[in-house]
Amino acid sequence: MKRREFLKKAGVGTLLAGGLMTASAPSHAAKRFNWKLVTTWPPNFPIFQEGVKRFAKDIRKMSKGRLKIQVFAGGELVPPMQTFDAVSQGSVEMGHGSAYYWAGKVPAAQFFTAVPFGLNAQGMNAWLYHGGGLELWQEVYERYNLTALPMGNTGVQMGGWFRKEINSLADLKGLKIRIPGLGGKVMAKAGANPVLLAGGEIYTALERGTIDATEWVGPYHDLRLGLYRAAKHYYYPGWHEPGPTLELSINKKAWDSLPKDLQLIVRTAAMASNLNMLSEFEARNLEALHTLQSKYKVQIKEFPADVLHQLRELTQITLREEAAKDAMFKKVYEAYRTFQESNEAWSAVSEAAYARALKS
Amino acid sequence: MKRREFLKKAGVGTLLAGGLMTASAPSHAAKRFNWKLVTTWPPNFPIFQEGVKRFAKDIRKMSKGRLKIQVFAGGELVPPMQTFDAVSQGSVEMGHGSAYYWAGKVPAAQFFTAVPFGLNAQGMNAWLYHGGGLELWQEVYERYNLTALPMGNTGVQMGGWFRKEINSLADLKGLKIRIPGLGGKVMAKAGANPVLLAGGEIYTALERGTIDATEWVGPYHDLRLGLYRAAKHYYYPGWHEPGPTLELSINKKAWDSLPKDLQLIVRTAAMASNLNMLSEFEARNLEALHTLQSKYKVQIKEFPADVLHQLRELTQITLREEAAKDAMFKKVYEAYRTFQESNEAWSAVSEAAYARALKS
Repeated sequence: MKRREFLKKAGVGTLLAGGLMTASAPSHAAKRFNWKLVTTWPPNFPIFQEGVKRFAKDIRKMSKGRLKIQVFAGGELVPPMQTFDAVSQGSVEMGHGSAYYWAGKVPAAQFFTAVPFGLNAQGMNAWLYHGGGLELWQEVYERYNLTALPMGNTGVQMGGWFRKEINSLADLKGLKIRIPGLGGKVMAKAGANPVLLAGGEIYTALERGTIDATEWVGPYHDLRLGLYRAAKHYYYPGWHEPGPTLELSINKKAWDSLPKDLQLIVRTAAMASNLNMLSEFEARNLEALHTLQSKYKVQIKEFPADVLHQLRELTQITLREEAAKDAMFKKVYEAYRTFQESNEAWSAVSEAAYARALKS
Repeated sequence: MKRREFLKKAGVGTLLAGGLMTASAPSHAAKRFNWKLVTTWPPNFPIFQEGVKRFAKDIRKMSKGRLKIQVFAGGELVPPMQTFDAVSQGSVEMGHGSAYYWAGKVPAAQFFTAVPFGLNAQGMNAWLYHGGGLELWQEVYERYNLTALPMGNTGVQMGGWFRKEINSLADLKGLKIRIPGLGGKVMAKAGANPVLLAGGEIYTALERGTIDATEWVGPYHDLRLGLYRAAKHYYYPGWHEPGPTLELSINKKAWDSLPKDLQLIVRTAAMASNLNMLSEFEARNLEALHTLQSKYKVQIKEFPADVLHQLRELTQITLREEAAKDAMFKKVYEAYRTFQESNEAWSAVSEAAYARALKS
């Protein structure tokens, strides 16, 4: 007799299920979940992909193996730009990327990543977790059979690498620059030619002069890509992406099938990852900035105030135009803008004022 | 025959322990932990105490009841300022408060809360999680049989409530101000008389003129305490506490007795709480600031740049003096200062530059 049969005959299964051991330890009977998570990142992409792998490993440990999440990098199972559809259709349970990648299909999604001259990381987290942002995000995604959680933030990105100096808005005219999303739309309004290139294509295009400029992430990732060898001028600040939130997307049906305690483990791990990745970006960026300056003698330049001012004006026009085209974009835009206005008034007496005090 | 005896006689205990069910579901045999957590906060203190209660509830759920943490507010089991000793001695397993409360015993602990003109919340998290800060914290606490985790941050505090205007450093001479920690030491150097008062005593003391000024937290908590009725001038920024980290302290022996998966649940929940509390502070503060200004017509004033400059100079002197008195303070001070310098260089091209761009 096999041991399992012996137990069955002895009625032990029933006894155990009846709570013999203790009422709250029924995990022998608990359902197990084997999920797949597809990301938009290259394999071993530092912080991004590594953070997702740590998240999956932690969940497996915390759930004592009840929720196993197998992580696939972009292209390993699903092409990076098709992960939204794959999670939406339920062929995989989870995705990790940036909500603004889906702007063509879901224009309002852009607010959940970053908006030019919008909220920084701290503002995004306040809005998403305690200012109504996450509820709006979930409302926007519901029709796609998806739910979403913030999971990671790059912090303020850099303005990018330019082969020539930018002294006025006129210098942007005709400039071929790799820049996605709303930032690209604003650049187009300023007369530039925004182009889209995958990470692997940027260095060669910039080095050969196929493009004149590119934004990427921040010092740590830009250093790894070697962009300092392809363009001389490194501009700041990244007005186009002041605190991009990364997203964990989850198929809604799969999510609803998960017991409450496993949902809580996922939510808690995603929130911890959100902070952990941001903290890692900050710590690695400050080191890499130092390396770029001291070792590679990179010239770090600030966009002229006048250029920033005009880009900000063009951003307001762009956002209003987009809002006129799409009702959900308009709804989220209005909530976001209201929150941002209060947030800026608060920052003016807290973070922004403190940054000034450090220079006093 | 009782059911437990039946199982024992049938040898089922052995079978189960041998991994009959499945190798990774041994929770029927898992040890249960009933822990106590004492805080330094009043009962129902918003965000602070509420955040700790949510943390305990979440851990109980995520661990399926294997780790139950009973939360006591300050004074319910242990007086607020004795929680460090209680956790250190093992009479309770966990504490929540601010590391700088223990400055009299552990001067170096102050770096793990806040330092005048030091790191803001984002900088603290980068330093603690990815810049070596947490390792130093654990080294400092080890001799007290404690370990610690960051768990919450108030963000930049306000400069405080003053019954008279501060136009120069001379206005601080003889000023009776409620301000704790290193900020208090710096104020004393500026000629003020720093006093310590518990939260419940502040309003009356200020209203009666027993003190001339007080710092507290930020708009949300200051509004609740009604401080706008007791003093006319509300100053910013809180140079003395630019991003205080709250601490979860854990008795080291208790911590080491916890299985790895429960340790991971605690670490993950503490990290999530850290971000969640900061986000809640930010969202509630921006609303409360609006209320203070629009409803109560509070005059918000910035400390003159010259006053801030001199307070910053006095801070450097104070830190050097403290470092000369205590070797561990010196060790942490040097690591903190090195990190802060790089962090400020990075902020100058990211957060600080972006804050300026929003005003362009």
